Amino acid sequence: MLGARGGWRALRRCPSSIFSSSSFSSSFSSFSSSSSLPREQRAPAVRLRVRQALGAREAAGEVQVQGWVRSIRSQKEILFLHINDGSSLESLQVVADPSMESRDLTFGSAVEVRGKLVKSPHKMQNMELKAESIRVVGPCDTLSFPLKAKERHPLEYIRQFPHLRCRSNALGALLRIRSEATAAIHSFFQDHGYVHIHTPIITSNDCEGAGELFQIETSNETQKSAEKNHFFNVPAFLTVSGQLHLEVMAGAFTHVFTFGPTFRAENSQSRRHLAEFYMVEAELSFTESLQDIMQVMEDLFKTATSTVFSRCPRDVELFHKYVAPAQKGRLEQMLKNKFVTISYNEAVEILKQASQTFAFKPEWGCDLQTEHEKYLVQHCGEVPVFVINYPYDLKPFYMRDNEDGPQRTVAAVDLLVPGIGELCGGSLREERLPFLQSRLQRLGLADTYQWYLDLRKFGSVPHGGFGMGFERYLQYILGVDNIKDVIPFPRFPHSCLL
Amino acid sequence: MLGARGGWRALRRCPSSIFSSSSFSSSFSSFSSSSSLPREQRAPAVRLRVRQALGAREAAGEVQVQGWVRSIRSQKEILFLHINDGSSLESLQVVADPSMESRDLTFGSAVEVRGKLVKSPHKMQNMELKAESIRVVGPCDTLSFPLKAKERHPLEYIRQFPHLRCRSNALGALLRIRSEATAAIHSFFQDHGYVHIHTPIITSNDCEGAGELFQIETSNETQKSAEKNHFFNVPAFLTVSGQLHLEVMAGAFTHVFTFGPTFRAENSQSRRHLAEFYMVEAELSFTESLQDIMQVMEDLFKTATSTVFSRCPRDVELFHKYVAPAQKGRLEQMLKNKFVTISYNEAVEILKQASQTFAFKPEWGCDLQTEHEKYLVQHCGEVPVFVINYPYDLKPFYMRDNEDGPQRTVAAVDLLVPGIGELCGGSLREERLPFLQSRLQRLGLADTYQWYLDLRKFGSVPHGGFGMGFERYLQYILGVDNIKDVIPFPRFPHSCLL
Repeated sequence: MLGARGGWRALRRCPSSIFSSSSFSSSFSSFSSSSSLPREQRAPAVRLRVRQALGAREAAGEVQVQGWVRSIRSQKEILFLHINDGSSLESLQVVADPSMESRDLTFGSAVEVRGKLVKSPHKMQNMELKAESIRVVGPCDTLSFPLKAKERHPLEYIRQFPHLRCRSNALGALLRIRSEATAAIHSFFQDHGYVHIHTPIITSNDCEGAGELFQIETSNETQKSAEKNHFFNVPAFLTVSGQLHLEVMAGAFTHVFTFGPTFRAENSQSRRHLAEFYMVEAELSFTESLQDIMQVMEDLFKTATSTVFSRCPRDVELFHKYVAPAQKGRLEQMLKNKFVTISYNEAVEILKQASQTFAFKPEWGCDLQTEHEKYLVQHCGEVPVFVINYPYDLKPFYMRDNEDGPQRTVAAVDLLVPGIGELCGGSLREERLPFLQSRLQRLGLADTYQWYLDLRKFGSVPHGGFGMGFERYLQYILGVDNIKDVIPFPRFPHSCLL
Repeated sequence: MLGARGGWRALRRCPSSIFSSSSFSSSFSSFSSSSSLPREQRAPAVRLRVRQALGAREAAGEVQVQGWVRSIRSQKEILFLHINDGSSLESLQVVADPSMESRDLTFGSAVEVRGKLVKSPHKMQNMELKAESIRVVGPCDTLSFPLKAKERHPLEYIRQFPHLRCRSNALGALLRIRSEATAAIHSFFQDHGYVHIHTPIITSNDCEGAGELFQIETSNETQKSAEKNHFFNVPAFLTVSGQLHLEVMAGAFTHVFTFGPTFRAENSQSRRHLAEFYMVEAELSFTESLQDIMQVMEDLFKTATSTVFSRCPRDVELFHKYVAPAQKGRLEQMLKNKFVTISYNEAVEILKQASQTFAFKPEWGCDLQTEHEKYLVQHCGEVPVFVINYPYDLKPFYMRDNEDGPQRTVAAVDLLVPGIGELCGGSLREERLPFLQSRLQRLGLADTYQWYLDLRKFGSVPHGGFGMGFERYLQYILGVDNIKDVIPFPRFPHSCLL
């Protein structure tokens, strides 16, 4: 046993050629330290992540693996452990002598195992670790630990334990996928020449959706009582979208994107809404066609999804096997086919001709309700559907007038997907100063948005953009019903745990 | 001239082999659309970003470039334009017939130029565009446009125009660098097997720095008056750090990182503070040594900086040439040498022996002041300096007791850098339940942090982590004096523009 503290500093850099795990290829230096123990002590071990150990191409002498015990099975002559360190869904099987068992060696305990990495005789796994020593680094109070060995806890159950649920298979897989999806989205835009912009979280724009905003105050009570004495001199809010700020940047960099938190103070307990959620937003200058924007939306969706599926197949499989069994085939079809496009006019006609009775009667000029969106997606064959050219009066001031009648429709687009509804929304922006000015004047917002009008005075260009709800994206590709299960720490009405 | 709207949809995919610009290699499909015009109209043009045109390896027939006019020079027989689209610091020179000049073709106007891409006769540039047509897409009201042709506006001046300053060379370069640095930091962690976590922005933890927090309320007035009727049932705040939430995740994934906005309601107008800024934070499980944490900090810093310098050399050069001329050599040295490490004890001794008189007398047990940090960095040769093992009472509850005396020092580290002061802070975290429990009890926080104590009950492991201020990082590598100039939309006391 490695009794001495600091035992795991006694490591040498491992020969990376043995280990094939691609995404860790350049990572060995951080998993190992230089050897500094005197010679007479035992040989330094190669420190491996579980994923590296599982992916090793050949047996290896002295290795060390650290992680948490996911299962323990004691037989007469042999002790089996499964060790997980979060680097993969799969755990590493450890084969040990029963003498290494101890009271603290339980499900959930943290351990450090040293031994030999050998080819596993079992078909289901490539390598296993023949233990020479097992040290319990941190025991686990299994009685009060809400996760139990060998149980598949429902997502609703583990949601009660936001500080522990990431140790379950489902949330572990989900958060690794979320991390890969984040990287894939960043890569998509970078590969296409977009500049990444951190649009502000705190903003003084309050005109877009008044009632649903979170307002910010200093927690200092004296300042609060002097109501007008705002920290920023003006009332400040949490952003609902980075779009207007992105438009500023599209006027300099042509193609820009942002990927950050956005907020709604909506009192909704729906499975599709959070008070804090993430949005991917892009803005493209020199674009006169809504189709160009839709093409980027579709490309982003397909590229990110393919990347995620190929980078964490086992994690994705867990969802497609146990959470949403029909999802895999549907998504593969979707990745192959072009998304469907219909106009708002067509959508209303389709709804009017539906045999189904709706709670909200479909009528030109009215917003599409969830039931309508659901029907349209069904009608088109359970595939992603772009709905374009919405009524002028339904949409915000910045959307571009199609001039197909007196303020009749704007060049807006929503992307509806099965099981979710609206996944993305976008539009061409009104780049023509007179159009924008008169609309803002009618709304009494011309003064507030003087800076926005400025963008149309100094080298204005036709442009457009879109936003995609990142959590809804994850819900869709994985078939996860509740949005609270695709974000590390969900915030919603009456709940802000941790 | 391309009079018809939709002219730039008449494009064909360009043969990417001609264009060498590496980071755009897979991006051509988004810059071009399929040809759909009838034959009798002019041949479709290849649509190029300025950076692609400048990096082209050979002449090309019909190309189209869009951007904003950065300079215009009319000679008797020739008209010179420089077009910038934000894809690079350098503009593309356009050579045109004087007949193409027009009233609207001014500095700042948006244009679309079609013509032939040819080798430039000038040494300073590779390619230039021989214009066949120039269309002014959006004119610029040059009289009221605050940026002027050929002027190098000071950073303080352009700071007044947050919606336009990104069109200046300095802010353009800066935001491209910021985008590359963001990507480099993400890559560093991904390459080393870290899982990316979106730690929450809204949090109910309010104990770390009471007075300096922003509190969140719904802007709905009726809810506000009923003071206890919080949206989340509990008071909610903007996060000051994702650390505690990252620790949750380090207990599942071993190595995790976050990179997001953090907030301080500090009433400081300093050149190093913002109310909203970005932090890179990492947390590592199975780490018993502060040196391991420091090694990651140093590796992150050096890898990100080398990547940024190699990916946008011209943008970086602008700062190292015009903003901070001495910075380049200093940074090159810094990248080659190991960072210096001194203990807090040593630091206090150095300060006590200094010939300089300080406003705050250096004394063991007192925090290092800016003047002290400055002196220490100077004393060590104007290089990055790790100061380790701070007094127990100076540091937050989660830092690990070094047990070098009764609650004498904790395993904390600050990284001080020339010109900035504290760039990073980190520590080992107290993983031992009894130590943490008694400290939280003394502070009266044991109930609030029951969930945090839980992490020590269920497979606790030695771990540690750090945070790096992203804006200070940019200030340091570029030599930018004021933090307001390294973020797109700065938020600070009395100011929340846009």
